[in-house]
Amino acid sequence: MYRPEIKVLDCTIRDGGLMNNWGFDKALVKDVFDGLVAAGVDYVELGYRADKKSFPPAESGIWRYCDEEDIRDVAYKTEKTKISIMCDVGRTDYDAFLPASDSIISMVRVATYAKDVDKAIHLGQHVQDLGYESTCNVMAVSHVLEPDLDEALEQLAGSKFQAVYLVDSFGYFYSEQIQYLADKYLAALKPAGIEVGIHAHNNLQLGFANTIEAIVKGINYLDGTIYGMGRAAGNCPTELLVDFLKNPKFDARPVFDLIQKYFADMKTELRWGYEIPYAITGLLNKHPRAALAFMKGAHGDSFREFYDKLQEAEE
Amino acid sequence: MYRPEIKVLDCTIRDGGLMNNWGFDKALVKDVFDGLVAAGVDYVELGYRADKKSFPPAESGIWRYCDEEDIRDVAYKTEKTKISIMCDVGRTDYDAFLPASDSIISMVRVATYAKDVDKAIHLGQHVQDLGYESTCNVMAVSHVLEPDLDEALEQLAGSKFQAVYLVDSFGYFYSEQIQYLADKYLAALKPAGIEVGIHAHNNLQLGFANTIEAIVKGINYLDGTIYGMGRAAGNCPTELLVDFLKNPKFDARPVFDLIQKYFADMKTELRWGYEIPYAITGLLNKHPRAALAFMKGAHGDSFREFYDKLQEAEE
Repeated sequence: MYRPEIKVLDCTIRDGGLMNNWGFDKALVKDVFDGLVAAGVDYVELGYRADKKSFPPAESGIWRYCDEEDIRDVAYKTEKTKISIMCDVGRTDYDAFLPASDSIISMVRVATYAKDVDKAIHLGQHVQDLGYESTCNVMAVSHVLEPDLDEALEQLAGSKFQAVYLVDSFGYFYSEQIQYLADKYLAALKPAGIEVGIHAHNNLQLGFANTIEAIVKGINYLDGTIYGMGRAAGNCPTELLVDFLKNPKFDARPVFDLIQKYFADMKTELRWGYEIPYAITGLLNKHPRAALAFMKGAHGDSFREFYDKLQEAEE
Repeated sequence: MYRPEIKVLDCTIRDGGLMNNWGFDKALVKDVFDGLVAAGVDYVELGYRADKKSFPPAESGIWRYCDEEDIRDVAYKTEKTKISIMCDVGRTDYDAFLPASDSIISMVRVATYAKDVDKAIHLGQHVQDLGYESTCNVMAVSHVLEPDLDEALEQLAGSKFQAVYLVDSFGYFYSEQIQYLADKYLAALKPAGIEVGIHAHNNLQLGFANTIEAIVKGINYLDGTIYGMGRAAGNCPTELLVDFLKNPKFDARPVFDLIQKYFADMKTELRWGYEIPYAITGLLNKHPRAALAFMKGAHGDSFREFYDKLQEAEE
């Protein structure tokens, strides 16, 4: 039996943009939006809203900023599929948001580290006051001390976010850890009427598996990306997720079409997915930046040397 | 805390051989054996022992037959790492086995379908009488009716196999199903002193995850392959498994070396791993043969047509 409360959010353009500097052309993003609407996905995240003063537009593709007019060129309001954007605490211009009633964006997701959760709640309040749905994505939880996480969740329980995400930024967790954290998040947030979400990375080929564990535990907001496209090893694949969920509103086939038209070749070029350097940072609970540098191939390290150096870096 | 009873078996040459008709050259297999010994793997499976009358040697590489002299060219007796081969019920020449005391092979794994478990026990008895360790791998369990599986397990509980494997041939199961079946296998076999093993396929990126679930449940014999090499989507990656297990006898780095030297390029050529046709047969609980044919690209089907046709094939 499917659970109708479950919401699937596809963040291919946003998280995948980390692999191509948000350089997707509008024809592709339009096809992605149409395909994800046909797939029955609940939210499509079309990029970040980065502060143009800190991140000059000449240096990145348009989906790093998600100007209203660019989104309107590729997407449209629908009953069943809403548009979301993400903004980072400390990298967001508060004045860059229209009132929600003037925008086709429905939801703003605020990404933060646990230590900055006060700032996240402040930014959340701002977009909530403008009329947007909003969520809070607490990143890099595998590096957070438990009392700090508990305090962050307690604060978030008093916020007006509609969902708070468990984010495995480094692709380090396996099922028992997801189960433990899911219980913790649900206990802290559900009584306050706040849903819990999961954003899994795939360094250890556990992105989909961990999302399933989260579903079993009662987490209702699920992130996926087409063909798993995302930073480094990427994410839980949307096509597997929508087929696994038995809700008849979902259809994986439009996602298969998008993979065949665009993402299969793009993966060969950009190399997200299962690659040993990404697996190594996952195994060692490290940020993938070292693995991404390794993949650029500038230096001649072996996998073994990469593994050994990363372990030494701890000391 | 690690569980010392856990045994890791690497079957790269055997299962991976399904992707290259067992055409690994001896220098590679020698390096693989040396590397897996250095990694601390408990068993290295070097191929099948197929009946040469049914499968003429001119048509396949030598690791489909595993002649004693070929194995001796690449491997050796060690204290900690044993050599295994696999044989299929109905495809095995009973006369093709030396007494174990004259062979460097320690273990023979008998692969069977649930319906042929009597024949598997008979073949097992034959190799046991010759002095080999032996296991039984019951394939394609996702297509077996529960009473038939229960009966097979009851029979196997009376056998002299040292382990019986839960085999997810089509890469269809997710955690809740693995948990259910692991409980069933353990309840049937552990009281008879028989260990349970897991052989997972990776069609839905769940090979490693399902192996972890099996470990959590108490399954002690674990199959992996280097870089996940195996038929279609392949298997649980040995490198992830040995790093995940905290037993200090294991070391993933020699496996990383083998991947860098051989298997990364081989994967680009042979294309096991996460590919949409393999994912589709996994989602639909089908044998991967249709997906392997699709990957050969002879016909012009789209992923969508492939998915639709496979569903129709059910009716």
